[in-house]
Amino acid sequence: MPNRVDQYAIGIDIGGTGTKYGLVNHRGDISYRGSNIRTNEYDDVNDFVDDLYKELKPSIDAVGIENIKGIGVGAPNGNVYTGTIDFAPNLPWRGVIPLAKMISDKFGLPCSLTNDANAAAVGEMMYGAARGMRDFIVITLGTGVGSGIVSNGMLIYGHDGFAGELGHTIIRPGGRKHEGTGAHGSLESYASATGIVLTAKEMLQQTDKPTLLRNYPLEQIDSKLVYECAMQGDEIAQEVYRFTGQILGESLANFIMFSSPEAIILFGGVIKAGSLILDPTKEHMEKNLLNIFQNKVKLVLSELKEADAAILGASALVWEKREV
Amino acid sequence: MPNRVDQYAIGIDIGGTGTKYGLVNHRGDISYRGSNIRTNEYDDVNDFVDDLYKELKPSIDAVGIENIKGIGVGAPNGNVYTGTIDFAPNLPWRGVIPLAKMISDKFGLPCSLTNDANAAAVGEMMYGAARGMRDFIVITLGTGVGSGIVSNGMLIYGHDGFAGELGHTIIRPGGRKHEGTGAHGSLESYASATGIVLTAKEMLQQTDKPTLLRNYPLEQIDSKLVYECAMQGDEIAQEVYRFTGQILGESLANFIMFSSPEAIILFGGVIKAGSLILDPTKEHMEKNLLNIFQNKVKLVLSELKEADAAILGASALVWEKREV
Repeated sequence: MPNRVDQYAIGIDIGGTGTKYGLVNHRGDISYRGSNIRTNEYDDVNDFVDDLYKELKPSIDAVGIENIKGIGVGAPNGNVYTGTIDFAPNLPWRGVIPLAKMISDKFGLPCSLTNDANAAAVGEMMYGAARGMRDFIVITLGTGVGSGIVSNGMLIYGHDGFAGELGHTIIRPGGRKHEGTGAHGSLESYASATGIVLTAKEMLQQTDKPTLLRNYPLEQIDSKLVYECAMQGDEIAQEVYRFTGQILGESLANFIMFSSPEAIILFGGVIKAGSLILDPTKEHMEKNLLNIFQNKVKLVLSELKEADAAILGASALVWEKREV
Repeated sequence: MPNRVDQYAIGIDIGGTGTKYGLVNHRGDISYRGSNIRTNEYDDVNDFVDDLYKELKPSIDAVGIENIKGIGVGAPNGNVYTGTIDFAPNLPWRGVIPLAKMISDKFGLPCSLTNDANAAAVGEMMYGAARGMRDFIVITLGTGVGSGIVSNGMLIYGHDGFAGELGHTIIRPGGRKHEGTGAHGSLESYASATGIVLTAKEMLQQTDKPTLLRNYPLEQIDSKLVYECAMQGDEIAQEVYRFTGQILGESLANFIMFSSPEAIILFGGVIKAGSLILDPTKEHMEKNLLNIFQNKVKLVLSELKEADAAILGASALVWEKREV
């Protein structure tokens, strides 16, 4: 076996707006990073792959293609078994896109593809807060709520590659309607940035209490504003985070009773509120756990720099241990 | 590698009332079965192990101890990592019991121990409805609700051995109180035999509709009676099963979005009601799934004979593939 420290992997993270990519060695050092590609400007996925190749070619030549083990791609609705992106609502390409094969053919390298939250979990296991752990869950709290679950040292992909959609589990039967899925009371409808804004607007309607949030027209209230008001000590804005933490904590308790992870790692914009959301999350998580699980599971924040995490996670797929 | 078909495993299933045990070959043929040991008559666990040994010794001698690969034990609160039974409320032995070591020392054979629902899952994978599956969930619906989860071909034990307590996940926040755990709205508080009786009693109080159940004093209503009335076409008794199925179906949807199993296998007394509970279960399971999971997951009944399932499941632990 060659010394893997001298080997490289390419990581590509495809988002609805932009795509990030880089060259990473086995230790997680990013020797090249790029973000010049605007995903939503490519109507034709072939042009997208061509431009990705042009961007990465110079750095591939610099280390020699023989020293690159492969390419890892994190993408919304990415399926590890088929290497396809299936019906991703936030990408410009319709239907089923065989992206792993297209990239592999263009670059002349093997390519693994999965969804972005799974890539994040592999990244945390190799380079982040989950180093050395065999059982953990990563929850990404951003515009939506994503998740990657590792048990027995391996990602849980399920029989079809779609496992780990914890954002869509129902925590309030008959509760708030999710505009994208039509489901009522899913975790994502509360604990995402979108959910936080909805909670804030609901609270404004339900109370007459003074709040900084009333200084703004309803349509200007976004998650950043709720965050800023909360940080300034605004009671209603803080109550928004407390409620969000409660829902998140109740959900985490259910997840723990499923896979009994050593830790739950939180990642994404929503957790910038720090203890305002973490304290109620922890409280309601513990409160809803069966006693054999209480005070055992670490609730930790991702250690990866947000700017690098997506590239690291995608590149880590290349080194992932997987049974197929 | 020797031909495993000629090898045997001992399976021991420890219940709160009785203990079942048997000698099983690799194909799942039970060549000896016994059930003479009443668990609750043993204040001292040493006497229990001694009597187990006396019961099994003749059949061990008959095939030769060199042809027995090991002993598998399914027991409430059994922990696979430590080989101990930890604080099992329904067993006569208090605290932490190092049962795997005690049995191994007495018999001179390796011993694996886990909880009864995990043993059931391994049994289904080797001999039952999950043969050839790498991703499935077994739900046991009896006095309580237990579960065993298999992903990537391996049981999910979690970091501490306690994974798979799906009966204790919360499906109705703030709902019915579970007498044993104090939790509100857990699956077990509704979908167990105990839960069915509570639902029936609640419905009797909430409605004036005629029902056969009113022919009995409230304290005589048990799950068998609810079942019999439902089978005779009693509307209220059938509504009890419909409601139970709804709760179960909503829970199953959440479990599917966690691990995306190929099938969910149901086992235990509660499912004797057949389509009365399965139809609403399936309906509400599908209704609460994200579209990528819909109409994909098989909802099946265990194929194992109830009398043999416990011994088969426990013995299958001996052959289990496990990463440690």
